[in-house]
Amino acid sequence: MRPITEITRADMAHIALGGAFLGTGGGGDPYIGKLMAEQAIAEHGPVPVLDVEALDDDALVVPVAMMGAPTVMLEKLPRGDEAINALRSLEAVLGRKADAIFCIEAGGLNSTIPIAVAASAGLPIVDGDGMGRAFPELQMVSMTMFGIHACPMAMADEKGNALVLNTVDNLSTEKFARVITVEMGGAGLIALYPMTGRQAKEAILRGSLSLIHNIGRIITTEQAANRNPADLLARELNGVRLFEGRVTDVDRRTEGGFARGQARLEGLEAYAGRVLTLKFQNEFLVAEDETGRPLAMTPDLICLLDLETGQPITTEQMGYGFRVIAFGLPCDPKWRSPHGLDLVGPGYFGYAHQYQPIEDIERN
Amino acid sequence: MRPITEITRADMAHIALGGAFLGTGGGGDPYIGKLMAEQAIAEHGPVPVLDVEALDDDALVVPVAMMGAPTVMLEKLPRGDEAINALRSLEAVLGRKADAIFCIEAGGLNSTIPIAVAASAGLPIVDGDGMGRAFPELQMVSMTMFGIHACPMAMADEKGNALVLNTVDNLSTEKFARVITVEMGGAGLIALYPMTGRQAKEAILRGSLSLIHNIGRIITTEQAANRNPADLLARELNGVRLFEGRVTDVDRRTEGGFARGQARLEGLEAYAGRVLTLKFQNEFLVAEDETGRPLAMTPDLICLLDLETGQPITTEQMGYGFRVIAFGLPCDPKWRSPHGLDLVGPGYFGYAHQYQPIEDIERN
Repeated sequence: MRPITEITRADMAHIALGGAFLGTGGGGDPYIGKLMAEQAIAEHGPVPVLDVEALDDDALVVPVAMMGAPTVMLEKLPRGDEAINALRSLEAVLGRKADAIFCIEAGGLNSTIPIAVAASAGLPIVDGDGMGRAFPELQMVSMTMFGIHACPMAMADEKGNALVLNTVDNLSTEKFARVITVEMGGAGLIALYPMTGRQAKEAILRGSLSLIHNIGRIITTEQAANRNPADLLARELNGVRLFEGRVTDVDRRTEGGFARGQARLEGLEAYAGRVLTLKFQNEFLVAEDETGRPLAMTPDLICLLDLETGQPITTEQMGYGFRVIAFGLPCDPKWRSPHGLDLVGPGYFGYAHQYQPIEDIERN
Repeated sequence: MRPITEITRADMAHIALGGAFLGTGGGGDPYIGKLMAEQAIAEHGPVPVLDVEALDDDALVVPVAMMGAPTVMLEKLPRGDEAINALRSLEAVLGRKADAIFCIEAGGLNSTIPIAVAASAGLPIVDGDGMGRAFPELQMVSMTMFGIHACPMAMADEKGNALVLNTVDNLSTEKFARVITVEMGGAGLIALYPMTGRQAKEAILRGSLSLIHNIGRIITTEQAANRNPADLLARELNGVRLFEGRVTDVDRRTEGGFARGQARLEGLEAYAGRVLTLKFQNEFLVAEDETGRPLAMTPDLICLLDLETGQPITTEQMGYGFRVIAFGLPCDPKWRSPHGLDLVGPGYFGYAHQYQPIEDIERN
């Protein structure tokens, strides 16, 4: 895989697609973020992509993101400068300017909005992220494993409200930011986990932007050749094809600032007669067969692709009758440590399953 | 009435009593705030009380307060330095030190905590407040009528969490601060409405600390002489004795960060056979007779005194069997302006009554 060194307007289609894929059903619909990034690049020029090793040890790296239920962002169009406002509020508290922007997670919205911010602010973006996928809560980043504090954290909404948080730990940051997000109408723009270049070199998951770009390129190329990208993606990413089927039931509700629920899929073709249940909280977290046996579970990735087009499908898009491929990918090894599993394992989300790496689960 | 010029440890008993009286059932139980202030004065010396006219026009005046459901503060003992932390967070944002402390409202807790803060910080306190009573929401202060912004506002809790708010208006400040308060466990310490001496001279309600001290002195003196203080208080404060009776029913719930509910009182002595209903949201807001006709309503004050001792009774203390005097007082004239009634009139709280000044309501 070839690392990208800058992001042009033309790259945004790939990044939006690849981000949505690694978003594992969450991370937001890419449409709005892609539009914002394309506009910002058209206005300010391409965004340089930095390998983390190229950062000065004392550089200030700032992740920016959308926080909230992705369903809300479809109705609540960002004004465009909230993310910049969040960044500026954080810079004001820190008393210095950011040197580089960073993606807190991989996802349709949160792999694209930071590019819009980087373009507007005239800053490079670091090739990496804090999750290697999307997760629903703020403390679920590799930075937490390395003792980096989410605070000071700045939040901004489209009305012009801005808040700065200084909490005692990253779980408290999540809890305060979550209720503030709900009060903002379900979604807000955030800047948090300010870190030095030295900290970033130790703590981040590397190369995500290049990976996302590559995934998007594969999906586009295969679609253009009338091939479903699932086979090539499986080969390139050590992925596992879990299921093919039709969505027959979706139970989805927005509660406590999250889109929570589950979907039932009935098997097609080789999977006829089988049932897959996907459980989600913004992201797909557990895939179970008809006996309740897990086929894949968090922190490993569960991705949904349209059976015909190979397009990634988010939890909020997924509806009755969709014909899909469910796809599993091993997570970054950092997540499989005891600290990692405490943060994002099945137990944290209230599932009884003991974590098993996806490559160790027998399937038939 | 003689203005007070300093607050000694011995004054705190009067201030706690008088504050609880003007708290109209809310403003918090005085016990904890009195204790904090007494300790701080014992350690740092008496607190000078300034007439607002003595302030430099460019002095920085900062109100500090407890925010939340008063019921919670009985279970969640403050660590003692949260209020100072809130003040210091606000000073850090403003880039300058406060010159004087101020009470956002009159009430058992919020007339005493600011004195504890003033003593600890070595600052004077201004003789006045923002409500002339207690009200349940942040924007309900005379400062809002004079265009003073509640933000930047700082909040702190006993765990060490601290947040700074910058919202687009004072109603938004209330909404964000309220959900944060709930996440803090139901109560937090706040510093807000930073204002200049010039702004304070225009906007505050004057002389409240002296008034509170005087009310406390009357209650104490009359109790010592075995007289119920109600008659003397009525004469001194242009008050109206609304009812005497026994509490037969209290419906109280903590919801959305407020203690909401109503109480039913059955008449005693001259009021035998009559019923009074008191409706409250932290504070008593409407007193209705058995036909639903209002006898007093917000922004006028409704205060409850113990029938035997003359002690003020808060909405959270009030229980079955309490024998009480219900007492009405005219509010500060500023509240009777159209802007004032928009902020704190019966309509804002969802009551159908058209506001009538307490002195214009016929009683029989």
